[in-house]
Order: sequence, then C-alpha cells, then structure tokens
Amino acid sequence: MSVAADKPSHGALVLIPTRLGEAPWPDFLPASVQNRAAGIRHFVVENARAARANLKQMGFPGLLRETDIRELPAEGSDDALDGLLAPALAGEDVGLMSDAGCPAVADPGARLVARAHVLGIRVVPQVGPSSILLGLMGSGLNGQNFAFHGYLPSAAESRDRRLRTLEEESHKQCRTQIFIETPYRNEHLFSALLRVCRPATRLTVARALTTSDEYLRTLTIGEWRQTPPPALSKYPALFLMLA
Amino acid sequence: MSVAADKPSHGALVLIPTRLGEAPWPDFLPASVQNRAAGIRHFVVENARAARANLKQMGFPGLLRETDIRELPAEGSDDALDGLLAPALAGEDVGLMSDAGCPAVADPGARLVARAHVLGIRVVPQVGPSSILLGLMGSGLNGQNFAFHGYLPSAAESRDRRLRTLEEESHKQCRTQIFIETPYRNEHLFSALLRVCRPATRLTVARALTTSDEYLRTLTIGEWRQTPPPALSKYPALFLMLA
Repeated sequence: MSVAADKPSHGALVLIPTRLGEAPWPDFLPASVQNRAAGIRHFVVENARAARANLKQMGFPGLLRETDIRELPAEGSDDALDGLLAPALAGEDVGLMSDAGCPAVADPGARLVARAHVLGIRVVPQVGPSSILLGLMGSGLNGQNFAFHGYLPSAAESRDRRLRTLEEESHKQCRTQIFIETPYRNEHLFSALLRVCRPATRLTVARALTTSDEYLRTLTIGEWRQTPPPALSKYPALFLMLA
Repeated sequence: MSVAADKPSHGALVLIPTRLGEAPWPDFLPASVQNRAAGIRHFVVENARAARANLKQMGFPGLLRETDIRELPAEGSDDALDGLLAPALAGEDVGLMSDAGCPAVADPGARLVARAHVLGIRVVPQVGPSSILLGLMGSGLNGQNFAFHGYLPSAAESRDRRLRTLEEESHKQCRTQIFIETPYRNEHLFSALLRVCRPATRLTVARALTTSDEYLRTLTIGEWRQTPPPALSKYPALFLMLA
C-alpha cells in the first residue's frame, strides 16, 4: 500500500482522558486539554451518556444536543471506523473519549487509533489521569520493568495458576505485574493473592485513585495477612505485585 | 515487623510529574497539581538544578534558595532514604520530582516511595505527563496487554536477539512491547528494528511527545522500510511494537 504522509489539511484524532471519579476538571486535566476538548464538535466515545456527563463536567461550551457524539462499535469493520473518522479527513478534529481515564489504554479505542494511523490522520494524545500510571508511580515497585495484564481468569483454579505464573515471572525478571478485576470480585482476588503468593512478595492495592476514597498501600503478602483488609468490593482497584 | 497504619499526623509523599519539554505548566499539569506543589517546602529530586528550573517554570511561589531541595542518592541506604522522609514523619509534605515526566516510572524514585510505604507515610501520586502512557494511547497497539522493558542491550548482537525475542513474545501473547533508547542511539535502534523484525509487525515511533517536535506514527515494518525515517538522534523517543 502507499503510505500517506500526515496531511496538514486533515483534522486530528485527539485522545481526551476523562475523570476517574467525581472531581472538578482542574483537579485532573491540564487547562490546555480542557481547552482543546472545548473546540471539538465531533466525538467518538465508549458510551454516549457517560460522554455527555463528562463533557458537561468539563465545562464544554457547545450545545450537547447539537454536538456529534457517536459510540465506538463493539465489533466495528474498517468501513465503520472510517465513517467515524470522516470528519478528520474533511479537516475537523475528532475527539476520542472513554468513560473514565485514558482512551485505548485498558479501555476501548485502540482500533480507531490504529485506523487513524492507516489513513494518515494525526493522532494527538492528551495528558490526563490513568489509574495504571498513578498506581505504578505510587507503588514503589519496579517502574523500569512492568507489565499490564488486564483481567485475570475468573475461575478460581485458573486464576490461582495464573497468579503463580505471574509471581514466578516477576521474581525471575524483577518485573512489576499489574492487573485489574471487576469491583465485585476485587475481594476474592485479594484473598487469592494472600493465599497463593509468597510472604516476601510485595503487593500494592490501589483503590479509587484521584477520588476521596483513594487508598494506596504497598505491603508484603506476609504483612497483608496480618492487616485488616481494605474495602474493595464497590470500587475500581488496581493490583500490582513484585516478587 | 509491626505494620503502622497511615498516621493522619504524618505529611504525605507527593509524587509530582514535570514537563517533558518546553511548555507552560497549564499545558501539561492540572491546576490542582500546580497548587499542591506550590504548598510544599521539602523536595526530593533527581537533580537539584533541573528541579529548581522546573519549580520556577511551574510558578512556584516560595523562595527557591530557602526551599529544602535534596537529591536522591544513587545508592541510598534505608537510613539515607529515611532522612529524606523525615519531614513527612514530622507532619510536613515531601514532594518527589524527577527531571522530566513521572517520578518512579522509567525514572528514579521508586526506592523512596517503597520506603514511605514501609514507614506508613501516605503516598499521593499526581496526574501529569508520561511519555509511556501518551505513546501507548496514541499507538493504536494493544492497550489491554503491554510491557515496558526500559533500555535494550546496547551491543548490536544482544540487542537484535532481544528484539527477536520481544517480537516472538508479542506475537504469541498479543502484547505491546515498549522500550526506550538514549537519543544518540535512537536511529541505530530504529534501523535494527527495520532490519530484524517481520514486515507485518507494527511499530510505533513516538518522539518528543507534548512538545512542538512531537512525532507519533504507527506503520508496519514493511511500510517503514519504504518511508523516509524520522529524525530521532536529538530527541527522547519511545518505541512500541505489536507483532
């Protein structure tokens, strides 16, 4: 295929992070990002309702009912994605937002970004909150070598096997292993970690970062076993391990 | 050991991201982070001179010569780190900053953060720019499964072997592999990627993100081979691969 250079006449695909919890936008977004988002009239989003709430909360100056807000298709063909990017080809910026945090990182959006690169549309990621990055910074674990694994298997046996593999690999490679769980299963995963992992392994629990329920703590598995467990079942949480 | 709960009488260790390039702070920091940093009188930093420049650029209201700015020791004992955290134990916040980007992620600081957890000092990561996160968002590669490997070996043979291993692992696990190089070796690494990797493998080059020299592009290795190479030798750059 021929490779198009970035067309200056194109609009850009602007990747706009959103709040992780209830907070005024100056708490989590640089003013330049709010300002950039305020000038956009075409959005591609994870969920239209959440996007409208996020834009409203960010002080979006446009009329939301006149703003072009389209949802990412779950299984979009290239043609469908190209349709979403059509405004950029016509010279106008398209904003990409997920419901919370950074689009395309542990969140939908990567296929649209990939498609923008194929079409030669400039991609402009903006600064904002990511629980993965905040959790890793705050963990004190190895930030020179780390891996994010998304969700672990939900069946207990496969999950426990996976935890052992991750711990072993972490120990051999001095790698921080990062993973998430759906809120109602967080406490099961936490218990499994305490049961399965070695006493000297360090475990960080990062809950509801950037909100008033923020909790961020690193202890060894041995210490966690002697510590009252944090409430996790109603909050987004991130787990980080270094063996 | 006994595990101290977070002491409300303690100050916190506040992790403060800094600019990736020349830019006014509202371009890369939320107002709340600038405000939080402005209230801190004790800083632990990668380099004191860079820290003073960064604080000045962030509109720090205190007198820099009266502000307690100490450098992270290269090989600090626990005692040395505890000394740096003493103001937090005495009730005052301590700010941790690296020269550019997020402390403790591909940057020094993790040992100090780890020590804060051991001492029961609350750790509060702040939102700001990270080239790793921005590059991953903007790559269009897999954001559900990714690993950061830091620097690859510098010797050509070991580096090429490592690239093959990373590509193979990426293909098997559908994992985005992320790595960096020192600026003057960026173009060597880029050439090695084009020589060693398979034509269908996607490679993202993310250069000087958030600055006026920003360049962010994803192409297959086959396409990169037919494309004029970007200038990389004088810029920080991040490479991301998905096979």
